[in-house]
Amino acid sequence: MDVRKWPRKNDPDSIRARQEALDLDGAVTGIDLEPFARAQEMLTGAAVTPVSVVGPIEVELGEYELREPDGAVLETGRARDSVFVPLAHTEGGLSASMHRGARAVTESGGFRTYVLADRTTRASCFVCGSAGDAIVLARWVENELDAMRRWLEEQDDPSLSKFARLRAVKTHVIGPMCHVLWRWTTGDAVGANMMTRNSYFLNMGFVMERAPVKPERSILEANMGGDKKPSFEYFQSGHGKTVLAEATLTEDAVRRVLRTKLDDLEELAWAGTHGAVASGMQSVAFTPASAIAAMFAATGQDLGMVGTSSMCHGAARRVDEGLQVSIRLPGLEVATIGGGTTLPYAHRWLELLGCAGAGKVYRLAQLVAAATLALEISASAAMATAGSAEFFRAHHERGGLR
Amino acid sequence: MDVRKWPRKNDPDSIRARQEALDLDGAVTGIDLEPFARAQEMLTGAAVTPVSVVGPIEVELGEYELREPDGAVLETGRARDSVFVPLAHTEGGLSASMHRGARAVTESGGFRTYVLADRTTRASCFVCGSAGDAIVLARWVENELDAMRRWLEEQDDPSLSKFARLRAVKTHVIGPMCHVLWRWTTGDAVGANMMTRNSYFLNMGFVMERAPVKPERSILEANMGGDKKPSFEYFQSGHGKTVLAEATLTEDAVRRVLRTKLDDLEELAWAGTHGAVASGMQSVAFTPASAIAAMFAATGQDLGMVGTSSMCHGAARRVDEGLQVSIRLPGLEVATIGGGTTLPYAHRWLELLGCAGAGKVYRLAQLVAAATLALEISASAAMATAGSAEFFRAHHERGGLR
Amino acid sequence: MDVRKWPRKNDPDSIRARQEALDLDGAVTGIDLEPFARAQEMLTGAAVTPVSVVGPIEVELGEYELREPDGAVLETGRARDSVFVPLAHTEGGLSASMHRGARAVTESGGFRTYVLADRTTRASCFVCGSAGDAIVLARWVENELDAMRRWLEEQDDPSLSKFARLRAVKTHVIGPMCHVLWRWTTGDAVGANMMTRNSYFLNMGFVMERAPVKPERSILEANMGGDKKPSFEYFQSGHGKTVLAEATLTEDAVRRVLRTKLDDLEELAWAGTHGAVASGMQSVAFTPASAIAAMFAATGQDLGMVGTSSMCHGAARRVDEGLQVSIRLPGLEVATIGGGTTLPYAHRWLELLGCAGAGKVYRLAQLVAAATLALEISASAAMATAGSAEFFRAHHERGGLR
Amino acid sequence: MDVRKWPRKNDPDSIRARQEALDLDGAVTGIDLEPFARAQEMLTGAAVTPVSVVGPIEVELGEYELREPDGAVLETGRARDSVFVPLAHTEGGLSASMHRGARAVTESGGFRTYVLADRTTRASCFVCGSAGDAIVLARWVENELDAMRRWLEEQDDPSLSKFARLRAVKTHVIGPMCHVLWRWTTGDAVGANMMTRNSYFLNMGFVMERAPVKPERSILEANMGGDKKPSFEYFQSGHGKTVLAEATLTEDAVRRVLRTKLDDLEELAWAGTHGAVASGMQSVAFTPASAIAAMFAATGQDLGMVGTSSMCHGAARRVDEGLQVSIRLPGLEVATIGGGTTLPYAHRWLELLGCAGAGKVYRLAQLVAAATLALEISASAAMATAGSAEFFRAHHERGGLR
Repeated sequence: MDVRKWPRKNDPDSIRARQEALDLDGAVTGIDLEPFARAQEMLTGAAVTPVSVVGPIEVELGEYELREPDGAVLETGRARDSVFVPLAHTEGGLSASMHRGARAVTESGGFRTYVLADRTTRASCFVCGSAGDAIVLARWVENELDAMRRWLEEQDDPSLSKFARLRAVKTHVIGPMCHVLWRWTTGDAVGANMMTRNSYFLNMGFVMERAPVKPERSILEANMGGDKKPSFEYFQSGHGKTVLAEATLTEDAVRRVLRTKLDDLEELAWAGTHGAVASGMQSVAFTPASAIAAMFAATGQDLGMVGTSSMCHGAARRVDEGLQVSIRLPGLEVATIGGGTTLPYAHRWLELLGCAGAGKVYRLAQLVAAATLALEISASAAMATAGSAEFFRAHHERGGLR
Repeated sequence: MDVRKWPRKNDPDSIRARQEALDLDGAVTGIDLEPFARAQEMLTGAAVTPVSVVGPIEVELGEYELREPDGAVLETGRARDSVFVPLAHTEGGLSASMHRGARAVTESGGFRTYVLADRTTRASCFVCGSAGDAIVLARWVENELDAMRRWLEEQDDPSLSKFARLRAVKTHVIGPMCHVLWRWTTGDAVGANMMTRNSYFLNMGFVMERAPVKPERSILEANMGGDKKPSFEYFQSGHGKTVLAEATLTEDAVRRVLRTKLDDLEELAWAGTHGAVASGMQSVAFTPASAIAAMFAATGQDLGMVGTSSMCHGAARRVDEGLQVSIRLPGLEVATIGGGTTLPYAHRWLELLGCAGAGKVYRLAQLVAAATLALEISASAAMATAGSAEFFRAHHERGGLR
Repeated sequence: MDVRKWPRKNDPDSIRARQEALDLDGAVTGIDLEPFARAQEMLTGAAVTPVSVVGPIEVELGEYELREPDGAVLETGRARDSVFVPLAHTEGGLSASMHRGARAVTESGGFRTYVLADRTTRASCFVCGSAGDAIVLARWVENELDAMRRWLEEQDDPSLSKFARLRAVKTHVIGPMCHVLWRWTTGDAVGANMMTRNSYFLNMGFVMERAPVKPERSILEANMGGDKKPSFEYFQSGHGKTVLAEATLTEDAVRRVLRTKLDDLEELAWAGTHGAVASGMQSVAFTPASAIAAMFAATGQDLGMVGTSSMCHGAARRVDEGLQVSIRLPGLEVATIGGGTTLPYAHRWLELLGCAGAGKVYRLAQLVAAATLALEISASAAMATAGSAEFFRAHHERGGLR
Repeated sequence: MDVRKWPRKNDPDSIRARQEALDLDGAVTGIDLEPFARAQEMLTGAAVTPVSVVGPIEVELGEYELREPDGAVLETGRARDSVFVPLAHTEGGLSASMHRGARAVTESGGFRTYVLADRTTRASCFVCGSAGDAIVLARWVENELDAMRRWLEEQDDPSLSKFARLRAVKTHVIGPMCHVLWRWTTGDAVGANMMTRNSYFLNMGFVMERAPVKPERSILEANMGGDKKPSFEYFQSGHGKTVLAEATLTEDAVRRVLRTKLDDLEELAWAGTHGAVASGMQSVAFTPASAIAAMFAATGQDLGMVGTSSMCHGAARRVDEGLQVSIRLPGLEVATIGGGTTLPYAHRWLELLGCAGAGKVYRLAQLVAAATLALEISASAAMATAGSAEFFRAHHERGGLR
């Protein structure tokens, strides 16, 4: 088959032509593809992932709104809820482990979650004739923020999104390059496409037309951010939703549910933090990606964003009530509208979470954070338990570990 | 519902009890769950992802075997192949973009792929009484490698895996902590569980029993590696399969298929590399995670490993024949046996790739790398094209971008 | 000698007592110590470093002033100058190499330098009772910036510095920790002490007294910045002076003065940039620290700041006129008043640079950047030349390299 | 003055010509320059730094020798010593602070220091025709280690150093680039020049002549290491001497000497470690560079290596006896012969340390580490004290802080 002749459309004939050319039948072609015909090109079959449901997770959630015009996230209220979590994956032990973590936290008083920031960024770059020009451009761009906002609102080009709102801009000059981070909010969508279109429009229609020094070249994305690539920029300054989850584990809950001790968890956190530093890890965490990937796969999120969304800064310390544990997810990219979230299965699992449709994205972000912390707690406890000689002997003598 | 009372088994009654408790029916419960009953606990429903098929990709692949006892990957031959690639995702444009990249490379002579290393690592830590003790322990552990290999082979504990073979060990002392990286190969499986069990066995049965200084505590995993978390350690030294894909794009193919020029691609690579440095990105790349997540979702790989598997170091330079582009994926964690790969849908998509079952894992790793490079090329070209004023005006005047 | 009995004062008797206790005489005690008696405790002798003078360096410098109240650096003019550079060091070849680089740039039209930012930061941390409290505190701190500025101005505590002016604040919450970056300008001094005192005053007198939630603990410095430790935070966002130097090397000057070719320099930059990425270097550069340490040692700068001050992001690209090369020094910590700059030798070398006293710090920062780029160019050229087989044979056959 | 006409020699007439051209006289030209005439080109004057002496520091040091042929550092004995430390700097408070830290440790039982590794690295790169060629080259280079060692020993080129001994080689392929880390030991010298010459010889005389695939280009240094630039590569794998210092602080000593509590130091370490992670710092430490720069300046070390030498991984934990604190300095580049160490002042200060001349370099490395830890302890304690409200009020009410 010549790559140029491979049919690319998604009409029933083209789909069937691909299936036949590849000798595909049975399960992979047996699911009705019609609902997915607009989700991607060259649609040919389907993949099924089993979904477990874990919970309920007890959580105190924040309610939020955006401040105009800078898009700061303001808390307007807090409420408790009890939520079941769908997990699409095939990793034996993961669902049971998260469930155990959730139990330990329930017995310790529940999770508390917070949204700190909401921001999606397109990292453009203008290559200028010299560093001097790049610096002039950078100063000008920073000063034009208000003018750019107004200009975007005035445009009526149908390809521009009104949901993507420009919130801030940051410049960074390296030699003749003026890198520009356009920071947007995009409502309940992840908004990658809408902010890309708007950034492009801004680059070509505003900057390239009006800049006091004409750049030689405009590059829509030049990696100064971290689109689907973990970066220090996003680990610190955030991308998508920056969310924090916290719980205070009691000695009693940890002992009964997790079969370990607070002292053991604390020493594990100490050694693991130093291990993370020594390995140059842009995270301090055990296995956040397992939880995040499973929730993403169930709810139609972009799986290419699992890496960035699971950057995680965890911390633990002793307090009077027990061990205060928390994670910060600086770059959680979730949506409750658009993309894969509208497709049949994903939508139903979002409904289970109470997160289907508009106005739910901060809730979803917080639930992902709480579930992720549940797994972190349980996975840490398993590590701590494993360190005990009694545990090893008991399992070994019974004829094998686990 | 009390979290303690949530049914955890996967017999039909328990599954139904969960579905009813959550009022789930319709599509998410309509797929036969029986094949998935051992894949996870608390199984309750399913998620479906549409799969496109893109290609064929023309690629020259290496054939490999492991050297004993150090597990170095040796090339034993090379062969050309033409392969269709299944992509499970819901990101509009992704399949078409990879297809375009594949076309440009086909017209430029095809991909060349290589496996450089095969390694999976468990990062344990022994907390000793003092730095002096930790240093003594580290020296001893490094010198006992051969003895540990023999000891592991002699054990007949059924929980030990014979597939996971100890290849190397690296120690790193920080104060009283002796971090130890146990490096294994695990055949065609990702092998996370098998090498975890063997590492645990080694920690408790060998190190804690025989060490010249008794550690105070053994920690099975203490983050000196980067299990499911991108780290500099794995970006440089590798994890899973370290794979390289390369192609030499001709000016003609780039112009006709990708509508851009080699000069534009080269300047983009230059600005993008400096942007990556400025953002503290542990990658130089555009969107490898999109390709990797889509192939992982289709073929039953662990989606929690998307972040680490898509760490990517790309480079481009002009040569006489055109632009030589390449990516290095240092930590690609793929399997052709075990885990999700054995489940119905995944197995069929692996078959399409010619990668189902034993002896196929290096082939799969190379195909993922080639497909990822196809998308990188096309995504870069789209960025380069977007920088032209003509492109912007043409689209804008036709009533909207794209 | 008991450590508790070691004399600590700097009166002549104490100095002599230490010298005698240690049997010190001759050169190390032969220099008049009186001018240094207030520079440090337990003064006992002296160290001498030879100083070379290299140049002149031809440079076009910017003139700058600070915008109120945010402290943005504004360019008010540009002027050319020709400057001799003093270098205190003992590294054979370094002075000759910088001189060669300066010559190549002179023949190519000179250096151009720019100051992008001026900022010194104290990274405090408030440990709160919970993440919720830390978030409330962070929001409040960010909103109190103007109030804090006014409050600082109203205080008449003599330990507060009026030179250190609060310009911005950034917060970062990790669990119950509210890290706070206080960003100051400090005029022509490095200002570490003055901004430390003012930050402390702010922490204890304003935050701890007025915060809506009372922190459990205030920590004056908790490493969220990078005081004397290179960090990504300062590599990107800057510390001290952020300075850029640029030159456009002509093919002719490079061939005649540096004995290499632009193509060779360009390929070196390409390979070296990728090497830097692969090594996890927070820099793209060859040997900036050599130049910076030598200028610091001559002019009485704080040598503990050599590491942070030499973080460097270099870039090179072909333009019509030749090779445009530049470095960005994001964290250059220099002073023309205070600290070691007032001492006899340092002051004289600052005078040679035209940088002694108030109002000269941006000039000094730019001259350091230009001299550093001179060395970068020459060191790169030496690497490029070394790669030629002719060079190797010629030197080898003459009976040894170099 | 034309840069081409600036006199470059160090004969008395040239020195005087430069002094007169620059109108230099008085202190900066008053020191006898003769001993420095071979230390650098274009010698023109001198700089003087005052030196304090602090101590004595009580330390238990290791004695070491190198294992052949891999250069592993083996401990052959341990001994206690009491040492005075010379510090050349102008930072008020630094000497007093280190002295206080030394006192606290003396009262807690003294320092313990260890050398873990000895290694200096030249990061060369061979640019090949393709990735395939680069991989073949990499495999070959790794397998030729023994042959290279023999070949180097057989050469009688006078420019080759017999002190620099090749210990290991590491390759890293990125596209067509085969980066090669040549790892050497260089005895009691830092050995930058000798290992550069030998690496160059190896590149041109062995690799370029014998490689199974001919590289297009050989680059002597391409930044895959971190020569004078802090890098993750060297933070983890080490450069120069990798040294560890440890002490166990008692509650009593901390309270009496440092006026703080172990609990406060522990919480500071916790917050500071998380701050370091959040700032992307390749260190966990407070101010190691201050101590290292001051000892380097006194003893004639290369000040351009202050940044790399002060990369530092500190850790603290509670033990029965108090707080066990330690630092790991992975890249300490010190010498007791060669370079600036032979010059008059430096040599005398090395004598004070008992470190002048051959066979003393591991002692010097350990003393630097112990002194650095002394300052870390004291600086941390000052931060902890500063957090107390009583401290603030007391000082504020007495009319100003400090």
